[in-house]
Amino acid sequence: MSSNTTALSANMMLYTYFRSSAAFRVRIALNLKGLKPEQVFVHLRKQEQAADKYRELNPQALLPTLVHEGHAIGQSLAIIEYLDELVREPPLLPHDPLGRARVRQIAYAVACEMHPLGNMRVQNYLRDTLGHSEAEVLAWHRYWLALGLEAVEKMVAAPHSGKLCHGDDPTLADICLIPQMANARRIELSLSPYPTLLKIERIAYKIAAFDEAQPKKQPDAE
Amino acid sequence: MSSNTTALSANMMLYTYFRSSAAFRVRIALNLKGLKPEQVFVHLRKQEQAADKYRELNPQALLPTLVHEGHAIGQSLAIIEYLDELVREPPLLPHDPLGRARVRQIAYAVACEMHPLGNMRVQNYLRDTLGHSEAEVLAWHRYWLALGLEAVEKMVAAPHSGKLCHGDDPTLADICLIPQMANARRIELSLSPYPTLLKIERIAYKIAAFDEAQPKKQPDAE
Repeated sequence: MSSNTTALSANMMLYTYFRSSAAFRVRIALNLKGLKPEQVFVHLRKQEQAADKYRELNPQALLPTLVHEGHAIGQSLAIIEYLDELVREPPLLPHDPLGRARVRQIAYAVACEMHPLGNMRVQNYLRDTLGHSEAEVLAWHRYWLALGLEAVEKMVAAPHSGKLCHGDDPTLADICLIPQMANARRIELSLSPYPTLLKIERIAYKIAAFDEAQPKKQPDAE
Repeated sequence: MSSNTTALSANMMLYTYFRSSAAFRVRIALNLKGLKPEQVFVHLRKQEQAADKYRELNPQALLPTLVHEGHAIGQSLAIIEYLDELVREPPLLPHDPLGRARVRQIAYAVACEMHPLGNMRVQNYLRDTLGHSEAEVLAWHRYWLALGLEAVEKMVAAPHSGKLCHGDDPTLADICLIPQMANARRIELSLSPYPTLLKIERIAYKIAAFDEAQPKKQPDAE
């Protein structure tokens, strides 16, 4: 780390859970920026995020939260845009407005359409309140991921992309896509209909920032 | 309109539907920026967004899409950030990074957690694929909106806010919140537990950009 990122990291704390794909996004961004804040592990399956103390930091009781110099920021994309403003290199958004719009469109296609429907609390509602079986919950989760990945595949298919979602360097789009693909793998969704996404995934994991952010490589992984 | 916004508007086209709350967000942003692009009405209940011609513009087959100088941009928040970069005044995000993070956090609390769960296609899945009654679909929709509004109320309650979500001027947070509250009213969710949000809503509708963007005031309103 540079002296700048060391000093920044010392004033930051990340509330995180290894399996949260929103936390996975933030871990990638922190790695790309060379930031290593202290981590506080909040166990999602044990409902630790619902504790009053955590809710004071994050009224949505969702993960992750980044605390910087005493200021708590929730929502992974708000955190990542903040980090991108704080540490300019490498930029997580392209320099041109149309490029930025394209990257954000891909990122939001994941974050606003796919991810929310597979959230643990949504699965719990389907199971506990609506009485659905595990098979029905799984079918729901797969349905929305497949629908979203199909659209994202079209958005990034040739001739639109470079090695990654937008050009050859990692952007907010890859930061959202890769954790969502990890979710898709976890629920054993076939990814063969999305050859461009598979290519991007292969290339992304060769970058240490993505590889080291994986759930299984976190200290709180089970 | 200034000559600048007149020239910009002439090169823009908005694909929209009066009742889409994502389109409502973009209409507010366009109004605040003084932009008046030609509108193309895509009827969501008639599934016009699923037509091949529209999918070429928007692979997600979602509304709205903004076309600027031949470039199609989907995802309302990507469009709004783009407009905010294109026309700097009035800014839709605060000048300080922490302020921007706060505004984005509120905006994403709506766009990434509340709105996706009440989408028409999600309601259709609950009804058609999972066999739920209208009452169960309505209860689902109300549950997620109430959960989200409760969190946003805490985020904007005194002493955190000004007249609107962040200070006294409209931001991306208000642009997301107000259409979501309109949805909540449409499904007759009681809003009395959210006094700060009600205050913000009252003030927002006094601003022409919000008032004129309402679904019922659109040319395609039914």
